[in-house]
Amino acid sequence: MDIKADITRAGIKKEEIDKLKSRIDDEYRKLRSGKIDMTGWVNLPFAYSESELAHIIDAAAEIKKKCSILIVIGIGGSYLGTRAVTEAIGARGSIGLPEQERDGSLASWINDGVNIIFAGNNFSAAYHLRILREFLGNDVCLCVVSKSGETMETKAAFAMLKAALETKYSEEEVKERIYVITGKSGSLRREAEAEGYKVFDIGEDVGGRYSVLTAAGLLPIAASGPNIKEFIVGAKDASEIAEEDPSFFDYAAVRYLLGQKKTAEVFEYYEPQLSYFAEWLKQLFGESEGKDGKGIFPVSLSMSADLHSMGQFLQEGRQCFFETVLNVVSPTHDFKVPSSAGEPLAGMSMNCLNNAAMNAVMRAHEKSGVPIIKIDIPELTPYYMGQLMYFFEINCAVCCGLSGINAFNQPGVENYKKEMKKLL
Amino acid sequence: MDIKADITRAGIKKEEIDKLKSRIDDEYRKLRSGKIDMTGWVNLPFAYSESELAHIIDAAAEIKKKCSILIVIGIGGSYLGTRAVTEAIGARGSIGLPEQERDGSLASWINDGVNIIFAGNNFSAAYHLRILREFLGNDVCLCVVSKSGETMETKAAFAMLKAALETKYSEEEVKERIYVITGKSGSLRREAEAEGYKVFDIGEDVGGRYSVLTAAGLLPIAASGPNIKEFIVGAKDASEIAEEDPSFFDYAAVRYLLGQKKTAEVFEYYEPQLSYFAEWLKQLFGESEGKDGKGIFPVSLSMSADLHSMGQFLQEGRQCFFETVLNVVSPTHDFKVPSSAGEPLAGMSMNCLNNAAMNAVMRAHEKSGVPIIKIDIPELTPYYMGQLMYFFEINCAVCCGLSGINAFNQPGVENYKKEMKKLL
Repeated sequence: MDIKADITRAGIKKEEIDKLKSRIDDEYRKLRSGKIDMTGWVNLPFAYSESELAHIIDAAAEIKKKCSILIVIGIGGSYLGTRAVTEAIGARGSIGLPEQERDGSLASWINDGVNIIFAGNNFSAAYHLRILREFLGNDVCLCVVSKSGETMETKAAFAMLKAALETKYSEEEVKERIYVITGKSGSLRREAEAEGYKVFDIGEDVGGRYSVLTAAGLLPIAASGPNIKEFIVGAKDASEIAEEDPSFFDYAAVRYLLGQKKTAEVFEYYEPQLSYFAEWLKQLFGESEGKDGKGIFPVSLSMSADLHSMGQFLQEGRQCFFETVLNVVSPTHDFKVPSSAGEPLAGMSMNCLNNAAMNAVMRAHEKSGVPIIKIDIPELTPYYMGQLMYFFEINCAVCCGLSGINAFNQPGVENYKKEMKKLL
Repeated sequence: MDIKADITRAGIKKEEIDKLKSRIDDEYRKLRSGKIDMTGWVNLPFAYSESELAHIIDAAAEIKKKCSILIVIGIGGSYLGTRAVTEAIGARGSIGLPEQERDGSLASWINDGVNIIFAGNNFSAAYHLRILREFLGNDVCLCVVSKSGETMETKAAFAMLKAALETKYSEEEVKERIYVITGKSGSLRREAEAEGYKVFDIGEDVGGRYSVLTAAGLLPIAASGPNIKEFIVGAKDASEIAEEDPSFFDYAAVRYLLGQKKTAEVFEYYEPQLSYFAEWLKQLFGESEGKDGKGIFPVSLSMSADLHSMGQFLQEGRQCFFETVLNVVSPTHDFKVPSSAGEPLAGMSMNCLNNAAMNAVMRAHEKSGVPIIKIDIPELTPYYMGQLMYFFEINCAVCCGLSGINAFNQPGVENYKKEMKKLL
């Protein structure tokens, strides 16, 4: 089984999709040609040398030996890919699990990864002071991720957390606890080389939102437990499916057509561990597509929680949106509801209930005319996370191509930075 | 200082607001008249007897003695108000703080509240199994919140967590560790009375999304630390300002006018501890207003993180939205960025940087024509959380009134429940 888009509830006719096929193929070929700037990510799954990968895996093993908490300092593309994967399948899910659960169906949670904490993704003093508590009773390493080295949130948090490291460890130990992932030049590269931190390259022809398969994602993901080789193989297989199976781009086609009628795309997930995957999707689509006054506003909802808050709006409010449902076909865990819940819940599997909720919502919304795309994800494993991310990256790029949008720049993000420099 | 809407960047002329004043006053008078169904919340800040409050405060003190973790089981309106307040100002911020920080500017974090964990807000097996780890090494109590007692997510989670309690405590102890907040009749009321659990009333003339000032919010909020008397006084003062100062409804007026041109309202906050307050806002507006094909789609962004993902879209994408910025005027915490950050960051206060980021974003977006409303929140304290929630509740209700929408029903939420019953 592979990642697959189910477009049967989207209200789009097969003929409409067929009409787009040759344009989609053109866009896809352009991406593979290597002639478009910042499309280095397209070939990333094939671009690794064994030695590069071994270098990353060794560093991750070293981090796991040195600490129980890795603080990843980064924002935007230097943050969301990592968080999407570590929250979905990383160690945070395993550490502290009751002993009696450490077997059987829960075994997949058990890995030897460190817990990851994210910093430098805001200027909140309260947020960063709270992180200091983790320095008590835990060994800590830092992983700083910034292509230019000039991102202000990252710089401020790194300075603050390095000072905290210095109160806990000797000068030599501090140097051994800092890992830097950055571009080939820039202030962070210079600092890392001067201080003797371990440094890893962010690919030069890859934008932040497409960088999860570079060291920016791979090093912290590996430290948090998942097998990054399987992750890369997943992406590679997705890339091969893209080559062979035109239906791989049905999502891009339907999304493009729906975007002509609707303003917003609502990503919905029924496993809360996918919440940062949805945040990653928002950056991927929002930043790739939101330019020239165009773009579909990306939004996410955590179900069934948000069904009890936004469900009324989805059912009967302004019909400005379509839904893209992230369906995990075989969740890793399950249990039966105890009998005290009474009928009809007693003895039922939670996964059955979750599945029934998803199907009930799709039926109810379909009846009220909401277009729905369902993305089937066979399992939440490193392999399928790799497939999934490549699936969305390549579909996003093709969809932008159909709309005549350059998916690989972000001219608008400089505006507030200029204003901020004036204010400081 | 009080909660205040700054509408100077909204692109709305004073005359347009003035024209609405008498209609706003009419809507407000209707709400206060007590003649509209489900408007019991309007008078909640005045409706408490000392003995009722004392009963809640006693139970909260009892919970604090019995456990270090309170699992609150509820969804929608039985969940989001509590989580909005406890994440913003509850104990989760204090427990485990490094000892050296337990003075000076961090003192406000220190309270004697229990940590709160939320359950029953989804059907995810993985999510609920993770909660079991908290039973190791911690004393636990449960607080079940459901008006009807029939909410399936709540029932399933309650049965599962009660079974976990039973493996840890004796039959008698289990009964003393379960707190129920429910309506005057229904299955949960009957069960609680039969088993001898402590029971509290959810107000009968108050819908879930307006219920934070009933026991549904007050009991778990008090257990997590904040002074609920100050919280109620804040709401009461907001209610008095609403009575005296017409500018209190400038937000409703501007929002109503912007809703005629824009599809979405983007709530933005610069302190991550407000993330669930934003979720509460989404339910308040989405469920009150999203009917008859109407409503402004409510969305939230956590800044500056989301600036590095959705910033491009906000600046140059499809201009289908306006922004409502939640500005904490005096954050409780601050620190100076260490010198290793280099110029211009070295020695700067994080709050100054955060404030500069907010102002820079507003300037950049204003220049590209985005309408912006700024809500000034003097401090994140129980008192101002009370003011803030009442401010939004009453503005939301008035705004719905202007659009001819009944803010107090939710006919659409039954549709998926019917489909789910068919499927089970």
